[in-house]
Amino acid sequence: MVEEACESVMNIGVEIQSNEGKNDECVELDIYPLSSYYFGYKDALLFKNYNLHHQLHKIKSNYAAHGLRTCVEAVILVELFKHPHLLLLQVRNSTFKLPGGRLRPGESDINGLKRKLTRNLSENEDGNGTEWEVSGCLGMWWRPDFETLLYPFLPPDVKQPKECTKLFLVKLPVSRKFIVPKNLRLLAVPLCQIQENDKTYGPIISGVPHLLSKFSFNIIQS
Amino acid sequence: MVEEACESVMNIGVEIQSNEGKNDECVELDIYPLSSYYFGYKDALLFKNYNLHHQLHKIKSNYAAHGLRTCVEAVILVELFKHPHLLLLQVRNSTFKLPGGRLRPGESDINGLKRKLTRNLSENEDGNGTEWEVSGCLGMWWRPDFETLLYPFLPPDVKQPKECTKLFLVKLPVSRKFIVPKNLRLLAVPLCQIQENDKTYGPIISGVPHLLSKFSFNIIQS
Repeated sequence: MVEEACESVMNIGVEIQSNEGKNDECVELDIYPLSSYYFGYKDALLFKNYNLHHQLHKIKSNYAAHGLRTCVEAVILVELFKHPHLLLLQVRNSTFKLPGGRLRPGESDINGLKRKLTRNLSENEDGNGTEWEVSGCLGMWWRPDFETLLYPFLPPDVKQPKECTKLFLVKLPVSRKFIVPKNLRLLAVPLCQIQENDKTYGPIISGVPHLLSKFSFNIIQS
Repeated sequence: MVEEACESVMNIGVEIQSNEGKNDECVELDIYPLSSYYFGYKDALLFKNYNLHHQLHKIKSNYAAHGLRTCVEAVILVELFKHPHLLLLQVRNSTFKLPGGRLRPGESDINGLKRKLTRNLSENEDGNGTEWEVSGCLGMWWRPDFETLLYPFLPPDVKQPKECTKLFLVKLPVSRKFIVPKNLRLLAVPLCQIQENDKTYGPIISGVPHLLSKFSFNIIQS
């Protein structure tokens, strides 16, 4: 394991002051820097390197066996230069993804997300995931058919959607080790760079600033 | 007053089953048709017909006098062909807007929104607005300067934003009269038409499907 700070990753904690009861105000989200954060690497994860044809075949056979495929992804915020940054993983220097992944059949959203976060961002793969505090669902994206288009709603007359991706806000504790597989890069990207940059980040990630727009960010200086 | 149904407006009620306490599930939003809805017209509202130069001048002098300008807007959903539709007002056959408007200095979000909804959608302008049930804040858009650009977050280093537009989910009661000024048209536009249609609807309206993406729509047949 290499004890290096991951490139471009900033050390921040997130704390939520929920005021769900108050209708008159939008929700406040405190973000504060935590320079005690630690970033390191662990062994590479095995990714199945399907081509598009095989991937589609696998998705179809999985659907036939288990029905709707559900993915859960984490929105984790850090602060840099007084602006919220989103933690993204980069695969093979190209694709950007939110930390998370596909649920096992019967697995709950929260348990599945914790398992994936531990796999992608923590040292101990066998942990019970208690170190991840998963907050509310921010949004859902639907794939009505075995095609590439995603919608932030279920289009009319779609009786059997094929995939649903749920985004959850994940609150970081004050102190945290991020241990990332060697073949992934952990990045902190400013919201203003992500916003409406569908071309680089895809529809789900480029839509995250919208999903966070109900929050007022309070940046707490340490 | 003309007792005609407003063109393209569908009669629907919205009821929210909040499950804020449950992290594992996204929030369900019941939408059901209510054919008892009534649509009519009232006298035209006076709109100040400034040109862009005068409008900018007015916004600047208002900012100097009262500081940050806050607008509150309502997201009101109706159902048609089993797909959620958003209620929009159309001004002079061109601009689309969400029902709502600018707060008076010192006015609360909720009170201001109720006042504007009554002005735009109800018979009695002098009512106390109790007929409007304003639910949570869905999102906020910021104008950092006296320019036209809007952001769903406060960009870094903006100390004195000039305008904030807050979007609130508004729940309709089972029975409702919509009485709309003659010079406005009330429209129900499907989410799938609004989605990513910034060119027609502008950034705020075209972003509404994102803001609603945490809801599962349950369409209740009457």
